[in-house]
Amino acid sequence: MKIAVDAMGGDHAPQAIVEGILLAAKEYSDVEFILYGDGEQIKPILGESYNTDKIKIVHTNEKINSDDEPVRAIRSKRDASMVLAARAVKEGEADALFSAGNTGALLAAGLLIIGRIKGIDRPGLMPILPVIGKDDQFVFMDVGANSDSKPENLLQFGILGSYYAQFVLGKEKPKVALLNNGAEASKGSDLSKKTYELLEAEESLHFIGNIEARELLSGDADVIVTDGFTGNAVLKTIEGTAFGLMKLMKSSIMSGGVKSKLGGLLIKDALGSVKDTMDYSKHGGAVLFGLRAPVVKTHGSADKVAVYYTIKQIRKIISSHVIPDLVTHFETHPKESNLK
Amino acid sequence: MKIAVDAMGGDHAPQAIVEGILLAAKEYSDVEFILYGDGEQIKPILGESYNTDKIKIVHTNEKINSDDEPVRAIRSKRDASMVLAARAVKEGEADALFSAGNTGALLAAGLLIIGRIKGIDRPGLMPILPVIGKDDQFVFMDVGANSDSKPENLLQFGILGSYYAQFVLGKEKPKVALLNNGAEASKGSDLSKKTYELLEAEESLHFIGNIEARELLSGDADVIVTDGFTGNAVLKTIEGTAFGLMKLMKSSIMSGGVKSKLGGLLIKDALGSVKDTMDYSKHGGAVLFGLRAPVVKTHGSADKVAVYYTIKQIRKIISSHVIPDLVTHFETHPKESNLK
Repeated sequence: MKIAVDAMGGDHAPQAIVEGILLAAKEYSDVEFILYGDGEQIKPILGESYNTDKIKIVHTNEKINSDDEPVRAIRSKRDASMVLAARAVKEGEADALFSAGNTGALLAAGLLIIGRIKGIDRPGLMPILPVIGKDDQFVFMDVGANSDSKPENLLQFGILGSYYAQFVLGKEKPKVALLNNGAEASKGSDLSKKTYELLEAEESLHFIGNIEARELLSGDADVIVTDGFTGNAVLKTIEGTAFGLMKLMKSSIMSGGVKSKLGGLLIKDALGSVKDTMDYSKHGGAVLFGLRAPVVKTHGSADKVAVYYTIKQIRKIISSHVIPDLVTHFETHPKESNLK
Repeated sequence: MKIAVDAMGGDHAPQAIVEGILLAAKEYSDVEFILYGDGEQIKPILGESYNTDKIKIVHTNEKINSDDEPVRAIRSKRDASMVLAARAVKEGEADALFSAGNTGALLAAGLLIIGRIKGIDRPGLMPILPVIGKDDQFVFMDVGANSDSKPENLLQFGILGSYYAQFVLGKEKPKVALLNNGAEASKGSDLSKKTYELLEAEESLHFIGNIEARELLSGDADVIVTDGFTGNAVLKTIEGTAFGLMKLMKSSIMSGGVKSKLGGLLIKDALGSVKDTMDYSKHGGAVLFGLRAPVVKTHGSADKVAVYYTIKQIRKIISSHVIPDLVTHFETHPKESNLK
């Protein structure tokens, strides 16, 4: 399998990206990489791995910046590393696209260059998140590919997420829940009430009803469906709260005198393992899901380890055949796209 | 001043409610309380404070349960403690309503019995939240009084919140921000884009633009405006993440061997102070704001200390005259209610 890599996207590109690819290339001998980006910068990082049969460079001087206006950037910077990588996927030269760059631009490249699965109206952005207190994970969708969604879009997110949980995460009969402001079916906004009905009526899903944000990380559901505006706010709240709490903990321990400081030293490993659990980059990147090929985005601040884990995930997505299976699903169940 | 207390609402009612009132009565000699509820249960808790000129009981056997359907309960249980307390406020026998009971029912009682400030279309539920890393607080509105909102509602939340931050929290020129999925003015859902325009055009506000959920607890804004569906999800995400993280920390320390357990003992005080910061019940309850009198809800699980702090807050709201000031504002600025 071949992965097209936007080597220039992300805060630490190309260094962290290329180093992560090297880690992955060492472990996965069945994966070939095409790195799109500035050859002059990439070559020295690759060192002796340069131009082996596993890693190729396609040189370009152009790249998309994090503050570029997405659609305009994709249309005007036709030789940007992300655009070239997307075109390679479109033309069948690569099986998947990886980037740590501008999320909006990646969404635009996915939609405009790679294209949607027939029957999917709007792809969603789907991170894989850790369950707290259990070695498990779940998918949450959409976290911001769309700012406004219709019930039909959310139904499709449920189907997409369920396929992913089953075929990539290996969960038999994944439990699908709707993020809502109460447990009862009658609760919620107009959007969530209508979505509830659609999810309940969809026979291909194991829909378990509403879930409240307080239980999000509990592992009660394998797939949690929401609109991109709410999902974005919830994901950023998790990050902000976890980060704030860890900071608060540190400053509280440091200002608590000698006893407390000593205690802080003794629990260092334990705190590290908490950080590890919360660091969801180890579960891979966020999948821009609903496109004709896997497009996976990792955090802009990703280091080489996060890049490595994302490649591991992409490899799993490709070998799972989840996307061809989804194409078949929407060909044989066209009703979802006709519900609009 | 007089506060009408729903003594039967909440998981630990009437015990925790009455004990909290006793704590408050001891400290605030200018406050009188009318306790609505089962006299047989309340009297023994009051002990010698029973029927002083500061604390009266109005006996009723009826109460609203946490799983009652709100509007139906308010209409059919005409002698429920919450309903009697709301009626006392409506009829001027008390200045404010306090409850730890069914939030939906309290919202219904507020709307149907006490009534809205003229010009306010929909009241919102507004908790007072802690800033992390600073001894400060901010208000966040709406966290779930409404499931669907219009831009005009959110503008009114901004005005309500700004008045509260100024007159109750004592912040001069409160900074008002809109919760959104990006910092730029062009970002967000249809609702947030239209709300942005209204907030920016409103001269009585110091609008500082969008804020992302990651920065919610940063103290960058004194008033954060959002719709009730998103606000509810965000608030519950904060609670769930903080709770999950503390649990994870504890189990990680306990499973980390002797060294780690000793460390855990040594940082116990520091952890306690973290918990204290995150325990927002010390900042008071959530105000059901936009009604003709203060209606304040504390957590169903509130203990006597949380009740005490909420009474402290209600006393401050009454003496601040923020509600009469808001009535005047909307009488002299009727345009907000005409924007629909």
